Amino acid sequence: MAQQARAIQTRRSILVAAADVFDERGYSSATISEILARAGVTKGALYFHFASKEDLALGVMDIQLHSDPLPPQLTKLQELVDQGMILAHRLRHEPLVRASVGLAMDQAVEGLDRGTPFRAWIDRLELLLRAAKSQGELLPHVDPGETAEMLAGSFSGIQVMSQVLSNREDLGRRISVLLHYVLPSISTPAVLATLDMAEDRGERLLRTLETVPSQVGTPN
Amino acid sequence: MAQQARAIQTRRSILVAAADVFDERGYSSATISEILARAGVTKGALYFHFASKEDLALGVMDIQLHSDPLPPQLTKLQELVDQGMILAHRLRHEPLVRASVGLAMDQAVEGLDRGTPFRAWIDRLELLLRAAKSQGELLPHVDPGETAEMLAGSFSGIQVMSQVLSNREDLGRRISVLLHYVLPSISTPAVLATLDMAEDRGERLLRTLETVPSQVGTPN
Repeated sequence: MAQQARAIQTRRSILVAAADVFDERGYSSATISEILARAGVTKGALYFHFASKEDLALGVMDIQLHSDPLPPQLTKLQELVDQGMILAHRLRHEPLVRASVGLAMDQAVEGLDRGTPFRAWIDRLELLLRAAKSQGELLPHVDPGETAEMLAGSFSGIQVMSQVLSNREDLGRRISVLLHYVLPSISTPAVLATLDMAEDRGERLLRTLETVPSQVGTPN
Repeated sequence: MAQQARAIQTRRSILVAAADVFDERGYSSATISEILARAGVTKGALYFHFASKEDLALGVMDIQLHSDPLPPQLTKLQELVDQGMILAHRLRHEPLVRASVGLAMDQAVEGLDRGTPFRAWIDRLELLLRAAKSQGELLPHVDPGETAEMLAGSFSGIQVMSQVLSNREDLGRRISVLLHYVLPSISTPAVLATLDMAEDRGERLLRTLETVPSQVGTPN
């Protein structure tokens, strides 16, 4: 068991190091030797867990697909908002999340299916929107599938722009602006009036989660 | 004059070749020798116009900043919609435009100011939104600056997602969806009812422009 825990820990440090390097250099300029140096592990240890740079990228992208569930809220649309606000906050503070999203956006990532992380993110939002629809939270014309795609696409571009213009300092505000413009076209007025879409929503939510250790922070 | 025209033509072919290579490989994997081969020009000709790969990238990004003006419409918000729909159409059909946007989104582009194309795009949209505001087309709470940033950011992400999921086949539809969700939070109802945000808007508009040769298609 101690040995298994150590292996999980080593795998995690390699992924964190790979994420740092992918995040700083982009995929194609990243080298295994820089990842090795950053992780402080032997070549043997790295190749025990990951066969190649591609395999490392897959491991990093995978992180995003398995993030922990968020606490249930009074409305499904608040949970939808929370997904965006939490991701905005984690992008600012967690290199693993940053690299995971960065790889999906990186044109130089050839041979890897960059569609998988997009589809996983779209599916998660679509599920929430379908639940919102069945609870009567959506305006009648709203199509959960196309709305989920629009939100995922918009989010992904706004985070690149925020990275370029402010090193993601203003990401919370920018995602809050997006939600303020889009939600009135999605939500019934009664639900809209209850939504917390403030730019510090992600930070506040994460602080609550940190007091409930069983729900967050466990490595995959 | 004939010599100058040839020089402009050569510069243009080099930029088109560079755009193709950047678009296919991403910035960091692109090589000068592949661009040379693609352009069918001598090394001397290329270095006469561009000092380095960075300089080529600047030239390609610059294209986006100097695209031709679109025809005036009855409302400034229709002109705003047209900017997005035309860009969606050009992204599908013009490698130069594709590479120009791609470079702004490419994390591996180090040492170049990727903020410039974003700011130029934001400025253009903000100008249209300010004009729309002064014509009474906007809802009272709308802030032209943050709205322009939100639209530019959303657009840029949706085009990456469309590229990943459908090789941009569905880009017109996706931008039309974005506009349908966002414009009701920007436009007065009376103007909203007049807006043409259909997914083939860009194509139709470009067809009109092609019959007015003085307005379009002149290289910079």
